[in-house]
Amino acid sequence: MKLNCDMGESFGTWTKGMDEQVMPFIDMASIACGFHASDPLTMERTVKMARAENVTIGAHPGYPDLLGFGRRELECHPEELKPILIYQLAALDGICRTQGTGIEYVKPHGALYNKMMVDDCTLTAVMAAVQAYAPHCPLVVMATPDASRIRKLAREMGVQVWFEAFSDRAYDDEGRLVKRSVPGSVHETTEAIEQQVLQIIREGRVTSITGQSIPIEADTICIHGDSHHAVEAARHIRSVVNAQ
Amino acid sequence: MKLNCDMGESFGTWTKGMDEQVMPFIDMASIACGFHASDPLTMERTVKMARAENVTIGAHPGYPDLLGFGRRELECHPEELKPILIYQLAALDGICRTQGTGIEYVKPHGALYNKMMVDDCTLTAVMAAVQAYAPHCPLVVMATPDASRIRKLAREMGVQVWFEAFSDRAYDDEGRLVKRSVPGSVHETTEAIEQQVLQIIREGRVTSITGQSIPIEADTICIHGDSHHAVEAARHIRSVVNAQ
Amino acid sequence: MKLNCDMGESFGTWTKGMDEQVMPFIDMASIACGFHASDPLTMERTVKMARAENVTIGAHPGYPDLLGFGRRELECHPEELKPILIYQLAALDGICRTQGTGIEYVKPHGALYNKMMVDDCTLTAVMAAVQAYAPHCPLVVMATPDASRIRKLAREMGVQVWFEAFSDRAYDDEGRLVKRSVPGSVHETTEAIEQQVLQIIREGRVTSITGQSIPIEADTICIHGDSHHAVEAARHIRSVVNAQ
Amino acid sequence: MKLNCDMGESFGTWTKGMDEQVMPFIDMASIACGFHASDPLTMERTVKMARAENVTIGAHPGYPDLLGFGRRELECHPEELKPILIYQLAALDGICRTQGTGIEYVKPHGALYNKMMVDDCTLTAVMAAVQAYAPHCPLVVMATPDASRIRKLAREMGVQVWFEAFSDRAYDDEGRLVKRSVPGSVHETTEAIEQQVLQIIREGRVTSITGQSIPIEADTICIHGDSHHAVEAARHIRSVVNAQ
Repeated sequence: MKLNCDMGESFGTWTKGMDEQVMPFIDMASIACGFHASDPLTMERTVKMARAENVTIGAHPGYPDLLGFGRRELECHPEELKPILIYQLAALDGICRTQGTGIEYVKPHGALYNKMMVDDCTLTAVMAAVQAYAPHCPLVVMATPDASRIRKLAREMGVQVWFEAFSDRAYDDEGRLVKRSVPGSVHETTEAIEQQVLQIIREGRVTSITGQSIPIEADTICIHGDSHHAVEAARHIRSVVNAQ
Repeated sequence: MKLNCDMGESFGTWTKGMDEQVMPFIDMASIACGFHASDPLTMERTVKMARAENVTIGAHPGYPDLLGFGRRELECHPEELKPILIYQLAALDGICRTQGTGIEYVKPHGALYNKMMVDDCTLTAVMAAVQAYAPHCPLVVMATPDASRIRKLAREMGVQVWFEAFSDRAYDDEGRLVKRSVPGSVHETTEAIEQQVLQIIREGRVTSITGQSIPIEADTICIHGDSHHAVEAARHIRSVVNAQ
Repeated sequence: MKLNCDMGESFGTWTKGMDEQVMPFIDMASIACGFHASDPLTMERTVKMARAENVTIGAHPGYPDLLGFGRRELECHPEELKPILIYQLAALDGICRTQGTGIEYVKPHGALYNKMMVDDCTLTAVMAAVQAYAPHCPLVVMATPDASRIRKLAREMGVQVWFEAFSDRAYDDEGRLVKRSVPGSVHETTEAIEQQVLQIIREGRVTSITGQSIPIEADTICIHGDSHHAVEAARHIRSVVNAQ
Repeated sequence: MKLNCDMGESFGTWTKGMDEQVMPFIDMASIACGFHASDPLTMERTVKMARAENVTIGAHPGYPDLLGFGRRELECHPEELKPILIYQLAALDGICRTQGTGIEYVKPHGALYNKMMVDDCTLTAVMAAVQAYAPHCPLVVMATPDASRIRKLAREMGVQVWFEAFSDRAYDDEGRLVKRSVPGSVHETTEAIEQQVLQIIREGRVTSITGQSIPIEADTICIHGDSHHAVEAARHIRSVVNAQ
C-alpha cells in the first residue's frame, strides 16, 4: 500500500505545506503544476526533494484558478480542458526530465478531481489528456464501492487507473467523502487516522460516519503534510504501513 | 534562408495575429508558451496549423507578464529564469508531442530576447535551459556584426545558435535595432522590406538608418503577420526568397 | 429608451471592441473592471472616451477569470463575491473620480450576470455590494416577463433596478435568451435588430424564436460594438431610437 | 512616533503575516491592494481588523506581479503606472468606505518603493496618482539624510509626505538600506531593534553598518509582523515607544 501526498503547493513567496519534512514518509509525491498552485522554481525544488528521497513523482494538475487554489468548480469545455491538462503534465514532466526523472502517474486536484468523479465528460477529457501525453502513467481516481463505470471508461480510453483512499477524511454511506463543512468530516487524531488506514489495508473497507462498513479497494492512500500535526501523523502512518 | 514569424499570440478570447493567413508563407513558427501570451488551447491550435503547413515549430518563451505582453523588462534571477524557461519549453513540446511533432528551436520573446543580447547572466540562464531540456534545439539570437561573445558562450554551454535578421526593422550603425519610438524604425512599405531582405540574403549586410553598410550574417529572417499589410508583405517576401 | 454597450474590454496589448467608433451612438457605457477584461490604463482611456461623448458610465464587474473572459461559471461564495464586486466598482469609480465623473449604474458581466438571474444567493450578494459601495447606482438586470422576484429582493436590499432588453439576441418562449449555440440565436441583419428594438420600444414585447409574443418591459437596450457590422448597426439603431 | 506595518499580504488560500497578532501594537496598517499580494476578501478582513484596533489604514500598492510579490523591478511607463496606482488606491478605499472608514495615507511596496526613491519619473507618477485620487493622503517615503529632492517635488505636485525609518534594517553610510543579501542587513535581536528605534526617536539618527552616525528624521517607523519573533519584537517596540 503506497502513501501519496500533495506537494509543491507553494506559490512565489507564499509557502504552503511542509514538503521537506513529509517527503521521507511517502511513496508518491503529487506535484502541483502551476495552474492552481506552484510555479516553475517551486516545481524544480520539489522534484529535487522527491528525487533525493526516491519518491515517485506524479503530476497534480488543476483548474487555472490560483485565487481559488483550484477548489472552485469552473466551467471548462472538454476541448479546452484536454490541452490545459497536457500543458501541465508536460511542464512538470519537462522539469523532471532536466533532473533525470519523469512523471509516473497523474492525479487531478481539488474541484477537477471531484468533477471527474461525477461527470463523464470531464473524466473522458482527463483520460484523453493522460492517454495523449503520458500513456504510461496511471490516473489516480477515488476508490468507491462501485468502480465499474470508471474501469469501463478507462478500458475504452486505454488508460490505467489507480484507486485512492483517504486516511483522514470521513466517508458517508455511499462511500463518498463527507463534505468539509460537516462536523467530523476530518479525522483529527492520529489514532482515528491509524484505524482508518489499517481497516483499508487489512479489510479493504472503511467505516462510514454513520457506522456502516463500506468496501473500498485502494492502491494508494492519501495523507496530508500541511501542519506539524500532519507531519507527525505521516511519520506514524508510515511506520504502521511498514509494519503490515 | 528561412523565414520565421511569431505565432500563437492570442490569449483566451483575445486574438492577435493572422496566424492562419501567414502560416503558408513561413518556414519556422515561433509559438508563444502561455507566459506572455497564448494559452493551452491556442497553443494546440497553432501547433496543428503549423503541422498542416509543414512549418518547423519553435518555442517562443517570455517573461511571466501577460499584461505587458512580455515586452517590459522584469528583474528575474537566473536561478528562477532557468525553470521558468524549461517549464515553457516543455509545455509547448508536450502539446507538440500529442500532435506527432516536437519543438525544433527556441527563440526568446520581447524583453527577454533584448536582455539576453546585452546581459551574459541572462543569456547563460537561457542557454542552460535549452541545454537542459532541449539540447537538440538551436537557440535563435539576433545577428550582430560581432557574434564572437555569443559563439563563445554557446560553445561553453554546449548549445547551437542560429542568427536572426529582421526584415522590417531599421538598424543603427552598431547593428542594433532602432527603437520603435524613433521615426523610421519600422519599414512601412513592402519595397523597403524586400530591399532589406535581398541585401541580407545576397550580401550578408543591411544598410543602417544613417546609410552605413553593416555586416549581418543570418540563418533566418524574422517577418511579421499581425495585419493585412503584414500578410501581404509575407506573401511577397516568400516569393522573393523562393526566387533566390 | 437608453442604449447601453459593453466597453473597455481590451487587455494589455490585446484589443477587443471598437469603443471609439461606437461611443457616439450609445447612452450608457458598461466598462469592464479588470477581473474578466480591461486593465487600469484601458479603463482610464475608456472613461475619457465616455466623458468626451457625454455617455453615462456604469461598472461592468465580472468573475476573476481573464482566460475565460468571465463567461465561465465559477463557484464563488457570496461572502467572497461581495468584496470581489466592491473592489471592482471602487476601482472603476476611483478612475472616474480622477476624471471628474463617477459610476452611475452597475451591470454584472457574462456568467455572473446569468448566474444572478437564476440564483438568489448570487443576486443577493450582487445587490449587497451595490448597496454597500454605490447605493445611488441602479443595478441593471435582464428584463423578463415576470420581474416580481427581482423587484421584491431589490426592495428588501434597498437597491434600485433597471431592466435591460437585448437588441440582437433571440428570445425563447419563457422570455430568456436562446443559447448562442442554437442556430438563429443572434440576429445577423440590421433589419432584424431594428425590428426587435422597435417592438421593445413601441409595444414592450419581443417575438420569440417560435413566434410567440412575450412581454418585456425594458429601461435600456443592450447593443454590441465589437465588429464593423456592429458599429453600423449601432449607428442605425441610434437613429431609429432618436426618431421615436 | 507612529509604528507602521505591512498588512493584508495573504493571497487566496496562502497566508502571510500574523496580522491579527501584530495589529494591536501598531498605529498604521499598510494594506496590500491585490496587485503584488492580497485579494478582495483578504482586504475586507484586514480593514475590519484595523478598524477593530483603531489603526489608521494606508494603501500599499505595488507592481502587478503576484509571482514576484512586487519585489522585482518591472519596467512600467509613468502613463501606465499612474492608473495602476489609482486603481489600487480606489479599490482599497472603496472596501474601507463599505466599512465606515477610508485610506489615510499611501505607501508604495517593494520594488516600486525602491524605484520611486531613485527615479524621478516614477516618483512623479506616484505623486500624480496620490494627488489625483487621494489628495488628503500623505505619501510615505524613505527618510534619508537629504530629503530636499523629495520635498521639492512634493511641493510642486501638491502632495504631503511622511518620512519613514526602518526598525530592523541596517543602514549604509549614505543612509540607504543595506541589501538583504549582505550579512548583518537585518537586525535579528529585539535588543538591536530597540536600540535603533530609540536612536531614531531620541536623536533623529541611526548608526550605519560601519559605525557612522547618520541623520534620519522620521515621522513613522516600519516594523514587521511576519513571524512569532516579529510579533514579540512588535510588542516590545510598542512598549518602548509608549514609554518615550
